[in-house]
Amino acid sequence: MSNTAQAQLGLVLEAGGSELAELLERTEARLVKVADGHGSALGRHAGGTLAAGGKRLRPVLVFLSAAEPDARLVVAGAAVELLHMATLVHDDVLDGAELRRGRPTVFAKGGRAAATATGDLLFSRAFAELTGTGSEDAVRALSAASSALARGELMQRADAWSEDVTPERYLERCRLKTARLFECACLIGADPEPREAQALATYGVEIGLAFQLLDDVLDVTGPAERTGKARGTDLLDGTVTMPLILARERDPALAELDLRALDPAGAAAACDRIADTGVLDEVRADARERVERAKSVLAAAGIDERRRELLTMVADGVVERYS
Amino acid sequence: MSNTAQAQLGLVLEAGGSELAELLERTEARLVKVADGHGSALGRHAGGTLAAGGKRLRPVLVFLSAAEPDARLVVAGAAVELLHMATLVHDDVLDGAELRRGRPTVFAKGGRAAATATGDLLFSRAFAELTGTGSEDAVRALSAASSALARGELMQRADAWSEDVTPERYLERCRLKTARLFECACLIGADPEPREAQALATYGVEIGLAFQLLDDVLDVTGPAERTGKARGTDLLDGTVTMPLILARERDPALAELDLRALDPAGAAAACDRIADTGVLDEVRADARERVERAKSVLAAAGIDERRRELLTMVADGVVERYS
Repeated sequence: MSNTAQAQLGLVLEAGGSELAELLERTEARLVKVADGHGSALGRHAGGTLAAGGKRLRPVLVFLSAAEPDARLVVAGAAVELLHMATLVHDDVLDGAELRRGRPTVFAKGGRAAATATGDLLFSRAFAELTGTGSEDAVRALSAASSALARGELMQRADAWSEDVTPERYLERCRLKTARLFECACLIGADPEPREAQALATYGVEIGLAFQLLDDVLDVTGPAERTGKARGTDLLDGTVTMPLILARERDPALAELDLRALDPAGAAAACDRIADTGVLDEVRADARERVERAKSVLAAAGIDERRRELLTMVADGVVERYS
Repeated sequence: MSNTAQAQLGLVLEAGGSELAELLERTEARLVKVADGHGSALGRHAGGTLAAGGKRLRPVLVFLSAAEPDARLVVAGAAVELLHMATLVHDDVLDGAELRRGRPTVFAKGGRAAATATGDLLFSRAFAELTGTGSEDAVRALSAASSALARGELMQRADAWSEDVTPERYLERCRLKTARLFECACLIGADPEPREAQALATYGVEIGLAFQLLDDVLDVTGPAERTGKARGTDLLDGTVTMPLILARERDPALAELDLRALDPAGAAAACDRIADTGVLDEVRADARERVERAKSVLAAAGIDERRRELLTMVADGVVERYS
């Protein structure tokens, strides 16, 4: 996470007061406990993954979507984070990724089998945790998000290296891969009042899409010291994202570019060409519009001002992350 | 499944009457439905996996462990089967297995990413299904079994090619990899009456261990046309099982055998040497003792005669499978 994003989350925590901070602390404690009692190797891998942290953005969405703090929120926040981490661990196996957030992945430390088993364990723990809340709706929402994640992951791999991914298909993939779990976090936290839950679901989807769009811009712009990844990692992986899709329409050299033939220097050069077409500002503008829409939907649903302020800060944080 | 085992399960179904047959049919229908609505590629892979069938031994254990037929049993049976299949799909990825039960695996048809995603989907559906029963205890039992499966899988891979796996460690691995899910099936089906549930749990563990022991004997004896696998597949995979562990103590040539250097002909020769030591009869005897113990525990717990008879037939079926 960049320093600006960290600062932004700090502001949310400050504004959220001790209640929010306490929910997050209890979620951390719960995540640490999840890794206990599953045998030394598996516990070590799962524990290391959970301790590696991250923004805990999804649990924060669970908490801020609820009208009142409540013990069930800690469990629900932990469950959503566990599902998120399970998919990251399996993604790293498929990508053969050695590092995540600057730390060695489970795949790097334990190999393919250990990482597959660790992800499986985190999947099952996510659902076992959530069952503790006694809400069938919550489990159904998590299961639907889990199915969406799996479909999004498959779609990304099906579209790898493709020359004809449409913007619509790209957005559908982002929805499945990223936005649906944001939506799920909001829905699980939300009180069942229909207008409120619907508004929070829309909010979750829109900031999820904005998050993914800006993440994909960042892969083009770098710099690596901010993102922890070399520029053009997506291009080298064959992942076709919105900046490339739009830039291909404007620059014939990009339209003819064979991603499979790229080396890191070629990927950096392609990133420069993508930036030169001016599409990055368009993608950023689309993301910002989604964030604005997310914020205005909350206002229209009559969500109380204090929560709206915090959710607005989270939404702005998604944009800040990349500014 | 061998013809004798199929015949044995047929006998159980016949003796169980229309109630048992109906529960199984409804479980099949539920499993087919699970694959719906998850996108075409994922749904096709998940559906193909679920339709490929198998003995449905675990759902049968769920049903026979209950004193009365009950709608929740169908859901619980489907959940246990889903978890079992999720782990098979992931195992096939790790093993690079092309065939299972004579059919192409998801890994073979869709590749690594599709199979990982399919397994993840089946995991999450297992828990989502079970939540429908509203029993936290059931979800906790399934999650514990899932953790055990993951640990057992890791243990198997940690011990691959090892020269010093003890019989105790091998049995602990079988317990985690196989017996705990049998136990879970019995516990989820069982009525909460403590003595009955405890007896059924012990029954599940013992027939699970017997099942695995006899499976490992079968890998040594073949013949391939019965098992669908070449003899010595475990040896070629580096999986050290009880027959080899015991035979190594008796035959110095086996003690010095380097599994990594084996080719299929060498594996077949090693199988002959293992058989020549006479250990296979010992392993079979251990499995049969476990089955007898499983049956006697049921009698001591006062489980009604009709169910006991059916559970006895299932236990005998585990042995029949290999006779």
